[in-house]
Amino acid sequence: MAALAEDIFQKSAELSVEVTKPFTGSRKIFVEGSTPDIRVPMREVSQTPTRINDGIEPNPPIYVYDTSGPYTDPTASIDLLKGLPEVRLAWIEARGDTEALSGPSSEFGQARAADPKTAHLRFEHIRAPRIAKAGQNVSQMHYAKQGIITPEMEYVAIRENLQLQEMREDPRYAALLRQHRGQDFGASIPEIITAEFVREEIARGRAIIPANINHTELEPMIIGRNFRVKVNTNIGNSATTSSITEEVEKMVWSTRWGGDTLMDLSTGKHIHETREWIIRNCPVPVGTVPIYQALEKVKGKAEDLTWELFRDTLIEQAEQGVDYFTIHAGVRLAYVPLTAERVTGIVSRGGSIMAKWCLAHHQENFLYTRFNEICEIMKAYDVSFSLGDGLRPGCLADANDAAQFGELETLGELTKIAWQHDVQVMIEGPGHVPMQMIKENMDKELEDCFEAPFYTLGPLVTDIAPGYDHITSGIGAAQIGWFGTAMLCYVTPKEHLGLPNKADVREGIITYKIAAHAADLAKGFPGVQVRDNALSKARFEFRWEDQFNLGLDPDRAREYHDETLPQDNAKVAHFCSMCGPHFCSMKITQDVRDYAASLGVSENEALQKGMEEKAIQFVKSGAQVYSKV
Amino acid sequence: MAALAEDIFQKSAELSVEVTKPFTGSRKIFVEGSTPDIRVPMREVSQTPTRINDGIEPNPPIYVYDTSGPYTDPTASIDLLKGLPEVRLAWIEARGDTEALSGPSSEFGQARAADPKTAHLRFEHIRAPRIAKAGQNVSQMHYAKQGIITPEMEYVAIRENLQLQEMREDPRYAALLRQHRGQDFGASIPEIITAEFVREEIARGRAIIPANINHTELEPMIIGRNFRVKVNTNIGNSATTSSITEEVEKMVWSTRWGGDTLMDLSTGKHIHETREWIIRNCPVPVGTVPIYQALEKVKGKAEDLTWELFRDTLIEQAEQGVDYFTIHAGVRLAYVPLTAERVTGIVSRGGSIMAKWCLAHHQENFLYTRFNEICEIMKAYDVSFSLGDGLRPGCLADANDAAQFGELETLGELTKIAWQHDVQVMIEGPGHVPMQMIKENMDKELEDCFEAPFYTLGPLVTDIAPGYDHITSGIGAAQIGWFGTAMLCYVTPKEHLGLPNKADVREGIITYKIAAHAADLAKGFPGVQVRDNALSKARFEFRWEDQFNLGLDPDRAREYHDETLPQDNAKVAHFCSMCGPHFCSMKITQDVRDYAASLGVSENEALQKGMEEKAIQFVKSGAQVYSKV
Repeated sequence: MAALAEDIFQKSAELSVEVTKPFTGSRKIFVEGSTPDIRVPMREVSQTPTRINDGIEPNPPIYVYDTSGPYTDPTASIDLLKGLPEVRLAWIEARGDTEALSGPSSEFGQARAADPKTAHLRFEHIRAPRIAKAGQNVSQMHYAKQGIITPEMEYVAIRENLQLQEMREDPRYAALLRQHRGQDFGASIPEIITAEFVREEIARGRAIIPANINHTELEPMIIGRNFRVKVNTNIGNSATTSSITEEVEKMVWSTRWGGDTLMDLSTGKHIHETREWIIRNCPVPVGTVPIYQALEKVKGKAEDLTWELFRDTLIEQAEQGVDYFTIHAGVRLAYVPLTAERVTGIVSRGGSIMAKWCLAHHQENFLYTRFNEICEIMKAYDVSFSLGDGLRPGCLADANDAAQFGELETLGELTKIAWQHDVQVMIEGPGHVPMQMIKENMDKELEDCFEAPFYTLGPLVTDIAPGYDHITSGIGAAQIGWFGTAMLCYVTPKEHLGLPNKADVREGIITYKIAAHAADLAKGFPGVQVRDNALSKARFEFRWEDQFNLGLDPDRAREYHDETLPQDNAKVAHFCSMCGPHFCSMKITQDVRDYAASLGVSENEALQKGMEEKAIQFVKSGAQVYSKV
Repeated sequence: MAALAEDIFQKSAELSVEVTKPFTGSRKIFVEGSTPDIRVPMREVSQTPTRINDGIEPNPPIYVYDTSGPYTDPTASIDLLKGLPEVRLAWIEARGDTEALSGPSSEFGQARAADPKTAHLRFEHIRAPRIAKAGQNVSQMHYAKQGIITPEMEYVAIRENLQLQEMREDPRYAALLRQHRGQDFGASIPEIITAEFVREEIARGRAIIPANINHTELEPMIIGRNFRVKVNTNIGNSATTSSITEEVEKMVWSTRWGGDTLMDLSTGKHIHETREWIIRNCPVPVGTVPIYQALEKVKGKAEDLTWELFRDTLIEQAEQGVDYFTIHAGVRLAYVPLTAERVTGIVSRGGSIMAKWCLAHHQENFLYTRFNEICEIMKAYDVSFSLGDGLRPGCLADANDAAQFGELETLGELTKIAWQHDVQVMIEGPGHVPMQMIKENMDKELEDCFEAPFYTLGPLVTDIAPGYDHITSGIGAAQIGWFGTAMLCYVTPKEHLGLPNKADVREGIITYKIAAHAADLAKGFPGVQVRDNALSKARFEFRWEDQFNLGLDPDRAREYHDETLPQDNAKVAHFCSMCGPHFCSMKITQDVRDYAASLGVSENEALQKGMEEKAIQFVKSGAQVYSKV
C-alpha cells in the first residue's frame, strides 16, 4: 500500500470510530419521498419528559437539518478509499440524456490519469465521467423550465420542510410552533415548500441545486432566498501547508458540523488528486475556483494563462464532479484602474489574477469574452456558476465603491446570458462592509442580478479584529442573510492570519450556523423557531441533556457545563453553577407560578385580566407587540 | 499574614509581571487637560514605516481608548493589598460639598467592620466613607444642570476624542481619516466632543458618568448614545464556585482587555469583602445588584426582604464606592401574571426575587413605592441608577411581550422621578430577541424613557447555541448599538452553562469590543474608522506586526499567525501561509499598480477616466456609492 493510501486507511479507521457516533440524544432518520430511492436524511433529537406535579409529560422529538451524509450514521462504515454510495446514479441514468465516457476528455485529466509519478496519490476507484449527450442540456434549470420535477427537486423540498407539515398536524407541537412574524424584505417564502415550488424557483433563477452529474454521491440541497439560509465552508491546501488526508478529514468534519456546501480552494501540490479524494467522499456540493489550478499549470504566471488551458481545466474539474465553479468573469479591463487608489486594492485571488492578465495583454478578460463557451461546458455536466466578486472590498474603506458595483452590474449581464443557456447561477458578494452599508449590497444585487441567489463572504463589519474575524463577519452575515442572501460563506478565526485547522473549521461553521439560523428567524421562515422554543423550554425545565442536545454544538455545551458541575445529578438539578440553589430565577419563576395557582385564581384568568388592561394601553399607544402564533 | 492576604500578595506579584507589560508596539500616554491633575490615559500604537520604491515612508501612531488603568503600565507597581491611587480625591474635596464620615453608616457595614470572623478577608486599607453634606446633591447631573463642568466631564471629553482634533491638523492622518457616512437614527453626535457638550448631555439625561464619590480610584468614562458605545463585563462568585482572589484577577484582566465598566454579581460567600477588594483595585466604574446581597442577608427567602434591610444594603454599598446600582423597581405586581404563560417565565434573578416578594405579600414592589427614598441615597453619593429589566425575555418566544414593555414604560416613569432628584439613570434592556424585533426595543426605549442611555444584554438573536452565546448575542449587540444603545453588557461563551473563567472573560470582551466598534462605525462616530484604515493599510503592505498591534487582541493575532509561519522573517514577507508566494492577491495587486504606472499613464489619470465613465452610469442609476471623505 502506498504511503498516502496507508494514511487514508488509518484515517478511515479513526473516522469510523469518531464521526459515525451520532450526537447524543440524536438519531439519523430518513424520510421517504414518492419513490423508495428518495431517502432524505434528517437528525431526530429526542427529548426527555417534563416532570409535572402529577407525573410526567412527554416532549416530542425535534427534527434538525442534516448535512452529514454517513458521518453521523452508526450503521455506516467509513471507507475513504472507496468513497460514498452513489445515491443519485439511478436518477441520472433514468433521465437518459447522458452518456458515460471511456475516460477523462480533458488533456490534463488524461495526462494525470496516466502519470506514474502521481499514481501513489490517486483515488483507487476513479469512474469514467459522464457527459450530456450531444445537443442535450442536463441542468436542473433546464428541467425546471420544461416543467419537470426531478428527484433532486423533490428531495430538497422534503429536506427544507423538516417535517413541518407533520408537526402542524400533531398537537404535541402546537406550543412549539409559536413563531414571531418575520420581516422578509419582499421574499416570497411559502407556508410549505413543495417540489413544484422548488421547480418554479429554479426555473426563474431564484434558486439553484448545485448537482453535477458526476457527483453522484451528492445529497441534493437548494440555495435561494425563499429557502433556509445555507453555509459554505472553505478548505484546501496551499503551497506552504497541508496534506490530502488532512483536507479530506476537514471535509468530513465540516459536513458533520453542518456545512451545507464546501469549496476546495487548494492552491498547493496535487490539486487534481486532492479534489478527487474530496469529491468521492463528500455528501454536499463541492465548489472550486478553477483559475487557481489553471495558474498552477502555468507556474503562477498570470500573463501566461490562455483560454484553451482554462477550458481544459473546466472540463477536467467538471468531469471529476465539481458542483459549482467560481468564475471571475466580471473583472473587466475597464474596472481594474478603479481599484488603484483603494486602501487594499484587489484582495480576491481570482480577481487579482484576472486583473493582471487583462493589463498584461491589454485585452478584455477572456472569462468575459468566452462566457458563452463556458456556459456550453457548464450545461453539459450541470455545473452551476458562482459568479466571482473579484473586485470585492478588502477593507471598510473600499466598501461599495465603483469597482465593486461596476463588477456587480456585469455579473447581472452575465447572469442573463447564463440563463439563456439554462445554466444555474449564484452571485458572490463581499467582503468588508460596515453595517450601515450592508443592505445596499443586497438591494443592488437583487436588482442588478434579477434575484439570482446571493452568496456572500461575511461581510466583516470591522477590520480591527484579526483572530476574531469569524465574529466580525458573523455579525454582517446574519444581517445580509436576513436581507435576502441565500448562502453565507464562512470565515474562520484564522482569516487573514493562516489556514484553518479542524478546530477553526468547527468554530467557523458554528458561528455561521448561528448567523444563518438568525437570518431564517428574522425572515420568518416557517417552523424555524421550533428548535429555539424546544431548547428554551428544556432550559426552563432544567432538562440539561435536552438543552445540550438541541444546541448547535452539543459537545461544546456539555463540556462547558461540566467544567463547573461535572456530576451526573447536576444534569437534572434545578439549579446550575451560575447562581446556586438560592438564586435560581428559573426556580423562583416556577414558585411564582405555583403560588399564583395556589391562590385559587387560575393562571389563565389572571393572565387574561392583566392582558386586557395592557391591551388597552397598547392599543392606545399604537404599538404592535404581539407575534403571530 | 492571613491566607487570603498571602494569596492576594502572590497574585499581585504575578500580575505585576503579567499585566503591566504593554501590548506589543503600544505605550501608555497621558493627555493633560486644563489642570495637571486631569491626565487622560490612552494607548498609543506605533507603526513601522512603509517601504516604497525610493526609501521609506513613515506611518503615524494610532490612539486607542484605554480602559486598563495601571494594568498596562510598565511604570506601575501592582499592589492589590494597597489598592489604586485616588485620582479623583482632589476633585471631590475641591467641590467642598461632601464630608468624611468616621466609619460606615450602614448597620451591616459597621457589623462587618467589627466582625473578627471575617477579619482575615478584609481589605487592609479601608477608608472612612464620604457623603454629601446635609442638603447637598453631589451627582454629576446636578452639577451639569447648574452649568458646572466638572473635571470628570472634561476628562471624558478628552477621552472620547482620542486625539481626533490633533489628527485632523496633522497631514499624516489625512488618508486614514476617510470615513463612510453613518446612519445614526437621530442621534446628534458632534464633530468634536467638548466638555460643554458632555455637560449638556448629562444635564438632559442623555448620558451619565457613573462616579461614586467613594470610588476615588475611578478613571471617569461616559455612557450615552452620542458617545462611543461601551462594554460592561460581569464577574462575581456564586454559592458553588470562585474565590476573592479569582474575582479580583478577572477584574484586572477585564480592564486590560477593554471592559469599560464592570459588574460584581457575586451571590456567594463574603459579598461585602469581595466587593471591597474589587473596588479598591478597579479603575473603571463598578456596578452591583444590591438585591442579591439583601437576599443573602435573609438566607435566600425573598419574602423576608424588607425595605429597611434593602436600604441598609444600599448605604453599605454606596459607602464602599459602587458607581451604579441595578434596581428592579419596574417589576410591578400587575405585570407578574403577564409572565405566567411565557416559555421561560422570569429569567432575571432580581426580577424573579421581586416578583416572588410581590406575590408573597400581595403588595406593590417596595423598590417602586420607595423610589423617592432610594433617590435620596443615590444623590448623596452619586450612585447612578441602572433601572433593571426584571421582566426581560429569556427566550425568543417571550420577546417584546406585554410584561417586558409594560415594565419599560414604568422605567420611563421612574426615570422622570430620578431626574427630578438630579440622579443619573440608565435603562437595562433585553435579552433574547430575534433580529427583526430588535429595533422596536430601541425605539420604544428612546420614547418611553426620554433618551436615557440604554444598556442591553446582547440581545441574543437565537436560543439554539449554548456554548456560543457570546456570538448569538454579539450579533444582536452590534445592531442595537448601531440603533442607539449606549452600553452593551457582554455575554461569555459560558452563558447559560456556568460561570466564566479568565479565558471566557477575554472571549466575551473582545466579541463585545467588536460589536461596540461596529456600532460606532455604523453610526458614523467621527474618527472611528482611523483604526480600521490603519490596520487595513498595514495588512495590504504586509506590515504584519502593525496589523497585530492595531487589532483588538494583538496576542491572539500573533499566536494564530505563528501557528503556520513562526519565523521572524515571515513577519515582513510579502506572502503568508494562506496562499504562498505565487498566489498572493495583495502582491499581484501591487504588480497591477506598478504595471499601470509603467505604462506611462499616471494611475490618477487612468482612475479619473474610469471614474468618469462609471460616474455617468451611477448618476443614471440614481445609486449613491461614495462615502463622505
